[in-house]
Amino acid sequence: MISWKNLDTLDAYQELAKVTSVNLVESMTGEKGAERVKKYSVSMAGGLTYNYAAKQIDDEVLAVLAKLADEAQLTEKFEALYNGEVINTGEKRRVLHHLTRGQLGEAVVVEGVDKRTFYAEQQRKYTELANKVHAGEIVNAAGEKFTTVVQIGIGGSDLGPRAMYLALENWAKKNNTLKMEAKFISNVDPDDAAAVLDSIDVAHSIFVLVSKSGTTLETLTNESFVKDALAKAGLDASKHMVAVTSETSPLAKSDDYLAAFFMDDYIGGRYSSTSAVGGVILSLAFGPEVFEEFLAGAAAEDILSKNKNMLENPAMLDALIGVYERNVLGYPSTAVLPYSQALSRFPAHLQQLDMESNGKSVNRFGETVDYPTGPVIFGEPGTNGQHSFYQLLHQGTNIVPLQFVGFKNNQMGVDVVIQDSTSQQKLCANVAAQIVAFACGKEDENPNKRFEGGRPSSIIIGDQLTPASLGALLSHFENKVMFQGFVWNVNSFDQEGVQLGKVLAKRVLAHETDGALKMYSELLDI
Amino acid sequence: MISWKNLDTLDAYQELAKVTSVNLVESMTGEKGAERVKKYSVSMAGGLTYNYAAKQIDDEVLAVLAKLADEAQLTEKFEALYNGEVINTGEKRRVLHHLTRGQLGEAVVVEGVDKRTFYAEQQRKYTELANKVHAGEIVNAAGEKFTTVVQIGIGGSDLGPRAMYLALENWAKKNNTLKMEAKFISNVDPDDAAAVLDSIDVAHSIFVLVSKSGTTLETLTNESFVKDALAKAGLDASKHMVAVTSETSPLAKSDDYLAAFFMDDYIGGRYSSTSAVGGVILSLAFGPEVFEEFLAGAAAEDILSKNKNMLENPAMLDALIGVYERNVLGYPSTAVLPYSQALSRFPAHLQQLDMESNGKSVNRFGETVDYPTGPVIFGEPGTNGQHSFYQLLHQGTNIVPLQFVGFKNNQMGVDVVIQDSTSQQKLCANVAAQIVAFACGKEDENPNKRFEGGRPSSIIIGDQLTPASLGALLSHFENKVMFQGFVWNVNSFDQEGVQLGKVLAKRVLAHETDGALKMYSELLDI
Repeated sequence: MISWKNLDTLDAYQELAKVTSVNLVESMTGEKGAERVKKYSVSMAGGLTYNYAAKQIDDEVLAVLAKLADEAQLTEKFEALYNGEVINTGEKRRVLHHLTRGQLGEAVVVEGVDKRTFYAEQQRKYTELANKVHAGEIVNAAGEKFTTVVQIGIGGSDLGPRAMYLALENWAKKNNTLKMEAKFISNVDPDDAAAVLDSIDVAHSIFVLVSKSGTTLETLTNESFVKDALAKAGLDASKHMVAVTSETSPLAKSDDYLAAFFMDDYIGGRYSSTSAVGGVILSLAFGPEVFEEFLAGAAAEDILSKNKNMLENPAMLDALIGVYERNVLGYPSTAVLPYSQALSRFPAHLQQLDMESNGKSVNRFGETVDYPTGPVIFGEPGTNGQHSFYQLLHQGTNIVPLQFVGFKNNQMGVDVVIQDSTSQQKLCANVAAQIVAFACGKEDENPNKRFEGGRPSSIIIGDQLTPASLGALLSHFENKVMFQGFVWNVNSFDQEGVQLGKVLAKRVLAHETDGALKMYSELLDI
Repeated sequence: MISWKNLDTLDAYQELAKVTSVNLVESMTGEKGAERVKKYSVSMAGGLTYNYAAKQIDDEVLAVLAKLADEAQLTEKFEALYNGEVINTGEKRRVLHHLTRGQLGEAVVVEGVDKRTFYAEQQRKYTELANKVHAGEIVNAAGEKFTTVVQIGIGGSDLGPRAMYLALENWAKKNNTLKMEAKFISNVDPDDAAAVLDSIDVAHSIFVLVSKSGTTLETLTNESFVKDALAKAGLDASKHMVAVTSETSPLAKSDDYLAAFFMDDYIGGRYSSTSAVGGVILSLAFGPEVFEEFLAGAAAEDILSKNKNMLENPAMLDALIGVYERNVLGYPSTAVLPYSQALSRFPAHLQQLDMESNGKSVNRFGETVDYPTGPVIFGEPGTNGQHSFYQLLHQGTNIVPLQFVGFKNNQMGVDVVIQDSTSQQKLCANVAAQIVAFACGKEDENPNKRFEGGRPSSIIIGDQLTPASLGALLSHFENKVMFQGFVWNVNSFDQEGVQLGKVLAKRVLAHETDGALKMYSELLDI
């Protein structure tokens, strides 16, 4: 029997506050440090490893975190989720994004439809589309092949698919599987669409319009922008556009689109990269087989997340260490630092995933919680970040926990040796060095050159960023955020906090304002 | 006589802590709110306005902040800085980036050289280079014009120039002044250089190598990467590359470059966008006249920063409100939210500018300070961010102060009317709506849909993002960060916190490691 309780009512949480905290400088120095690196490590899917030696944990802290995981019934709650219970209680919805990549538990049948079958059927449909486009069976009016695919979407319909595309673009080039170049239009700023349209050959472009409700203002506006451009080029928009939406949306059965692919209310935008929202564009760009590998990586990682033993469940472990850092150690933000240029927009995706899911002040019963929930998430790829904001991370007055990601091999296979090492070796040497620098610090006579250390980090290490390892990485963070939401007892699957701004913006556009809003509208010439 | 004192020793700071804090919900509702929007506003250069009505200030708070500005001698310290005193005491260096765009005070003569003349001479030299490249007087070996310029640099040699290029790329296209496309290589990840090289025609590309010391590992490695590619294409690298460096660096007098342009130790990387570091690539990309307009915007804003009256000095005012939020109200991070797709990388530049400058725990005498200094800075363009992390900003358990930027007009002049408004109007309506939503919140029976409000923001409003307004915007933030450094009594112009990681990375590459560092090196196959 599942019970939803606030974190501060759990016995293990009280116990956690009393555990002696770990001195990282001491623990990570010398042979003791080497032992920790060996010991505090767990395998993930896709050939990845999650190493948490440089976190402020030891066996005692881990034992209490494991108790907390049990007491908060994380495994049971995950099980309820993937078996189709209404976990998104605010909106009275199931949470089924895991079914877009596999069957974790019982069949989930809604109104006579088996949802795993439904999502798989959508995948089959857009696989067929992609194959036909690649084979030249679906072509433009002049009978020519499409060369570019452009996603029109915002938020979850943009950040995840964009980050995944960038993550695999060079891998696909190298592996001769880049079928089409992908572009993205998201912002309602008209210069966004105009610049993308300027950069492509519209006659050979296919557009993927993504809006679950079919009513997202930015997306409909940008659709219209694109249709204008197609019309000006003498093209029939309906031959250049497909839709990803829900079956009940106005876009679902429209003749304006070549085809429509469906998601539903059980897939939150920020959890939709493995649904048709990511699937159509990624299958078109890389080929359906590549997207399939990506899904398999995510599915394999999902299975690990079922493990009741926290120490063998990387997402749960990461989640609980994060809760310890947020609620006991009191750190208000977390940096995500992938040592991989291909992951340049992965932090922006995690920023949405995490902050939109767990940036809540009320629990799932609508009661205000008395403890901090989701942290601020930010990040840039290394080594770039080292030459930017790492100064504050090393010597600032607040401690920021760090999440590194690194790969032994690069994607494109081109490299250069300078001063006896390759660029890839330099990249990896830097991330190794940073972990130890943050943890151990360094004494110095000059206080300006002193590093106090004690700054916690973890690292996910892989052989290479591939479709499978990317899928595992994505699933890891999705499930981590889900587990943290369970611990904080918030609903990680709604986003009521985005509504008020929309309502007021409509009022501005209708000129139905007074007071400060009217004044700002005038200042902005609306 | 200037005295450098810690913030917590200042009388005005003690007074500030005792001032009654402002209830934003109450102050910003109704006619009172409209009055605030009219009143709490100050003109900037470049046609910009800084409006701080939605910050937690009132006349009483402002009066104490003005006292604090006086007591901390902000005007006098800025004066000392631009007159050439050694403000970067740790490294015993002057701080002269303002001289790259104008003469604010007395002539600064170092070893017989007038520095304003020196920087102007560099600008004259790269103006000549740009004009000759555009006129086809400097061409490739085949006698053909260069069409692309690629910057090789990292940190301050990348983030600022990249953000400025993206900010003006579409404006320049629209105004027929985009002379060359610009690209950037920064990360030591070999896939970064490989991908950029894949995307350009090297035979028609000119590379700008930027490293003040001439020893930056990432940059030299990427130079070598590029030279390999040029050699493989049968091209003479020395005919395709210019250097931006200091006169004493190994790059300064090398035959490996077509030309070399100089900066010096008095220009910090993160303050170098208006020096040759930004000047060479931006003059090549947009033409020297456009870069000149950008400098003029910055220079005009610098002059406003000299004003002793805080209420007429937008950078100082912004700085002090930020100190109030950080040190009295206790907010640990700040979001920068430009409602302009062109400013997509401006937050990443500010992240470096701010966090590398003021992420310090010791004062300029090396003594540990007992108060928080620089906050975490992050941000993405609106409206994209609204569909991402704004949930946490509206309803999360921590308050994050917000810095909005908005423009009445877009850059490309193409737009579409949907539901009776243009995209640009929708963009502006959204930022106006957000300010009021954050400040005033909204009651609701359903606690999940309740917005408590009281979340402070300011907005910089302009007619259009142009070279001049971009220059003013850049200068505003540079000077804001400088003033905050003065208030916190830290040295905003060194970055000792980046050194330890470099040292340890070298040790990894030399295989001179033990303990945890050795273990991590093995895990990463180095």
